[in-house]
Amino acid sequence: MSQQISFKEMLKVFGLGAVALVLGVEWFDWLMRRLRVRGPLKEVLFFPSTQTCLEHLFTPNRSFPCKCPLPHGKETSFSRLLRHLLSAHASLDLCVFSFSHMELCRMILLLHERGITVRVVTDRDYMTITGSQIGNLRRAGICVRHEMSTAVHMHHKFAIVDGKKLITGSLNWTVTAVQSNKENIMVTEEPELVRPYRLEFQQLWEANDPAKHTHRVTNGW
Amino acid sequence: MSQQISFKEMLKVFGLGAVALVLGVEWFDWLMRRLRVRGPLKEVLFFPSTQTCLEHLFTPNRSFPCKCPLPHGKETSFSRLLRHLLSAHASLDLCVFSFSHMELCRMILLLHERGITVRVVTDRDYMTITGSQIGNLRRAGICVRHEMSTAVHMHHKFAIVDGKKLITGSLNWTVTAVQSNKENIMVTEEPELVRPYRLEFQQLWEANDPAKHTHRVTNGW
Repeated sequence: MSQQISFKEMLKVFGLGAVALVLGVEWFDWLMRRLRVRGPLKEVLFFPSTQTCLEHLFTPNRSFPCKCPLPHGKETSFSRLLRHLLSAHASLDLCVFSFSHMELCRMILLLHERGITVRVVTDRDYMTITGSQIGNLRRAGICVRHEMSTAVHMHHKFAIVDGKKLITGSLNWTVTAVQSNKENIMVTEEPELVRPYRLEFQQLWEANDPAKHTHRVTNGW
Repeated sequence: MSQQISFKEMLKVFGLGAVALVLGVEWFDWLMRRLRVRGPLKEVLFFPSTQTCLEHLFTPNRSFPCKCPLPHGKETSFSRLLRHLLSAHASLDLCVFSFSHMELCRMILLLHERGITVRVVTDRDYMTITGSQIGNLRRAGICVRHEMSTAVHMHHKFAIVDGKKLITGSLNWTVTAVQSNKENIMVTEEPELVRPYRLEFQQLWEANDPAKHTHRVTNGW
């Protein structure tokens, strides 16, 4: 009797074990596929980007349709870039060598008006070239710091949205870069990639704090 | 008796279930950590890079120690970049705006000598500036194509090693970029990121095939 029960028990345990194993494998496979599909954002955008109307991004609630002659309703690399910037809820840290693109400037001003904390680090020489939008950012009250050294170019072109979305590549924020050149940017939320750029930004932000360089200014440096 | 057995069975099943659950959670946690640790390569390098002796990378089998005055045995962002290039077994596709760094040129020539298939796409204007290494690559038999349009800059700065490792960022292949500027590069084997750059390279390679533009040359374009 006792042996019969043990055998029954064994059968049940093996049966349950087999079912659990099959279900487990199925569940694990499903989970891995979900993880792969919904992994951190990774998007690559190439330029030049075709010119389209972007008014709907700046004024989404306007009641009348835009009547400009540009194509409407088409998604491009540039509109994707603007959308990623628009996704900011709390902060935008921008590190860019050359910034003369008026629509990108308009976007940054819009984010600033919405209460997003915007910080900009840029190059000392390029911030004063004709068409640079750095002055417009500063006049709007956005905090901009520039590379203090005269011997070095701050050649980065990256942005970090809300501390977790990285936008980086070869693209300077100029009309030539967006509309003419062969350029690339990558947008990712992969923590291993975002973290080093966040640290680099913080380091540059602190190293180029004007308060730390006041003595140089008074000495005529 | 039958009720007593059912209760025993239930206890055993619950007990085994609990053990299986605990072991399963432990195993899943271990697996996820392993997957995270051994995920595709992701590395970020920042510049400027300190100058060190790199002779061991070019001539690893030399019997005598290098006696140059530069620091030895120190890993830097630049030595990491060279190591990633050196990891090529079959191919290197390089898309770079400005290429005047002699050590990077030496590395490309070394790979070419080793039988690695090297293809280079570069900018039309910048390939002829003083110090450009493009001529040296061509003289060594490496196939270089340049952006054909006069109105456009080929401003990319990326390389693909063996079709699966992407090196991309703000860094041009110049001494100023490596030793002075604030620059970044990202090295990744994440297929979702590598694939678009591979396609972009192929597209640029084909679009700038001189055979397709011969009529322009004969017409004096």
